[in-house]
Amino acid sequence: MYPPSIQKLIDLFSKFPTIGPRTAARFVFYLMKISKEEIEELINSISNLKKTVKICSCCFNPFEGEGELCSICADSSRDKTLLCVIEKETDLFTLEKTKKYKGLYFILGGTVSKFKKEDIKKLRVDELIERIKNPQKFGIEISKFEEIILAINPTTEGEATILYLQRKLKPLGIKITRLGRGLPVGGELEYADEQTLGSAFEGRK
Amino acid sequence: MYPPSIQKLIDLFSKFPTIGPRTAARFVFYLMKISKEEIEELINSISNLKKTVKICSCCFNPFEGEGELCSICADSSRDKTLLCVIEKETDLFTLEKTKKYKGLYFILGGTVSKFKKEDIKKLRVDELIERIKNPQKFGIEISKFEEIILAINPTTEGEATILYLQRKLKPLGIKITRLGRGLPVGGELEYADEQTLGSAFEGRK
Amino acid sequence: MYPPSIQKLIDLFSKFPTIGPRTAARFVFYLMKISKEEIEELINSISNLKKTVKICSCCFNPFEGEGELCSICADSSRDKTLLCVIEKETDLFTLEKTKKYKGLYFILGGTVSKFKKEDIKKLRVDELIERIKNPQKFGIEISKFEEIILAINPTTEGEATILYLQRKLKPLGIKITRLGRGLPVGGELEYADEQTLGSAFEGRK
Amino acid sequence: MYPPSIQKLIDLFSKFPTIGPRTAARFVFYLMKISKEEIEELINSISNLKKTVKICSCCFNPFEGEGELCSICADSSRDKTLLCVIEKETDLFTLEKTKKYKGLYFILGGTVSKFKKEDIKKLRVDELIERIKNPQKFGIEISKFEEIILAINPTTEGEATILYLQRKLKPLGIKITRLGRGLPVGGELEYADEQTLGSAFEGRK
Repeated sequence: MYPPSIQKLIDLFSKFPTIGPRTAARFVFYLMKISKEEIEELINSISNLKKTVKICSCCFNPFEGEGELCSICADSSRDKTLLCVIEKETDLFTLEKTKKYKGLYFILGGTVSKFKKEDIKKLRVDELIERIKNPQKFGIEISKFEEIILAINPTTEGEATILYLQRKLKPLGIKITRLGRGLPVGGELEYADEQTLGSAFEGRK
Repeated sequence: MYPPSIQKLIDLFSKFPTIGPRTAARFVFYLMKISKEEIEELINSISNLKKTVKICSCCFNPFEGEGELCSICADSSRDKTLLCVIEKETDLFTLEKTKKYKGLYFILGGTVSKFKKEDIKKLRVDELIERIKNPQKFGIEISKFEEIILAINPTTEGEATILYLQRKLKPLGIKITRLGRGLPVGGELEYADEQTLGSAFEGRK
Repeated sequence: MYPPSIQKLIDLFSKFPTIGPRTAARFVFYLMKISKEEIEELINSISNLKKTVKICSCCFNPFEGEGELCSICADSSRDKTLLCVIEKETDLFTLEKTKKYKGLYFILGGTVSKFKKEDIKKLRVDELIERIKNPQKFGIEISKFEEIILAINPTTEGEATILYLQRKLKPLGIKITRLGRGLPVGGELEYADEQTLGSAFEGRK
Repeated sequence: MYPPSIQKLIDLFSKFPTIGPRTAARFVFYLMKISKEEIEELINSISNLKKTVKICSCCFNPFEGEGELCSICADSSRDKTLLCVIEKETDLFTLEKTKKYKGLYFILGGTVSKFKKEDIKKLRVDELIERIKNPQKFGIEISKFEEIILAINPTTEGEATILYLQRKLKPLGIKITRLGRGLPVGGELEYADEQTLGSAFEGRK
């Protein structure tokens, strides 16, 4: 019912994460309202993205600038014996904001619900193992990681992925940890599941 | 913390309706993952939007094609004595899907919470009055509208806007109606406010 | 795990509408905290309920006082030609608060999801037909109702019940109406289903 | 508007935790529908509650049976060197279900939002200190507790209460812990606050 060039753009925006056709339509009408200069700015920013932004050869974090490594991997003040495996780019941002972690990251690229070959192929598991086995080859000047932290969501999919990674990484003989489970800030015992409460008890301090 | 060209695009997407910085970041990482061809397609679609799409000189509905009028205003089978005033473009789409209305539309361009001059200026109130006074001047071949339907949301802002429009349109001497209020499909008496229930009673049939 | 007399009371409270075992447990611990006098008061109120409260012989509304009719059915200022069929007692209270209705009520006692004999038996359909056929027999001094309003929720179950009642009451030759559907106060076109919007359009005024 | 004896009972049920007048009304109409025998059973259960159930002289847990101590405090297989301070009775039930804790409990009786004298008086702080100082006096055959676990919700109120208890209990020279904070089962990094994530990192294992 929308004119074809509007419908076309609605279809493209509908592929954006979390966006359905209704919000996509609102995007299009928003674009029709803003100035030519703003449209230009948006188009240029999208167009420059792939030209300017590089992917870190060690952790797969997008970055701008010289060299092969992102600012975290290249930062000499970070603790390079710790490697934190995360699902996606935004999780890195979320964790950095806590200022509680000073090691390196590795962006896995997703999670899997089942151990299907095709699903697992989409994750950077082989790349992860390579980097753990030989960090120097990827520009990290240490002989060996001392701890691999699996900072994956404790959701059903995340748990399956953690299980898979634990199995795959175990033969490497490095300490593997996962985030502590417990009551979140603002949480209540009454509404917590038994496993969360059990973990909260075990992790008391 | 994000590289400048990523942060720039996050900022631009954050201006999109309903989008915060977190979702905006996910949009950027989505764009980094898709192919060059898909990026091209998106950029071309955005870029063509303002070139291809025209705004109907009568109802402000975006359209493609010949002439000054959109397909609804130009459709000889529509009842041109009915004018339905709506807030935004997507509402037109929503109402057309019901197939219960066969008249014309007018896109007001927003609602106001208070009767501030600056807020009201953003609405197309003068344009609406012009079209009601002289539909032929805008390509609608009737001598007079017989009913103006204010299909504005019965929210606080919508009610204020309806009140304002009723006052402004009254001197034109045309029947002005608003959408019937009542219980929506799936609604329950128990949770309905008194005004909704009262309207549902009055509108029984 | 709770002591038997606490568990017993949790089980009894769990049968109360909308109450699960967790809230039921909180009720019991609340009762353990309040004074003996307050417990007495509660027990007496529950115990007196069935002794003091009568059921109106016409509309099935609970009431206290002399005679066979509740205060609404006995009120000479109410419009006795209107009969409003409602699902449950609290709906009567909800509708009275709107002050938009001055007729009589009839409490159906539930709704049905399917037209199963056993389900329909639980509703007071026969009693309703009796009262419509012969209101004088039940103390209502009119010769005939002029309108039967089916004020049943427009939910799936409610719609099935309305359909059933329409079919059953049609042979009586009295005007049968139902509550107007439309957008509730605070509702938005964008999130309304097509049927609700269609009704809102048809019911405009 | 309801008859007095119904309104009276609505008022009494409205004092029950989490119950408003609407649900209270549904309770009353529920009671009007059930049999005399069921009413009797409910009244007897409420009436017997205070007669049958005792409060444990050590932990304030309600119990039935011989002696001064509840079944947990009297159970020789529990680890009596651990004392877990909880807000309310139902929390004990919730924690027991996890089967992760084998020590004793103490029911504090609430939480405080501010350190107002009147608010703090409602908590069993003095009773807690007494029991920690001299467990044998309350029937617990140990010379000293080894750990006091403050299993209070990490909500704003709970945190204030934990802070207050930590300050009051510190002079007793016993190890004081609190439940581990972290991501709950099913939680996502993306939606966790920085403090929860920081705790999850510190509590990794």
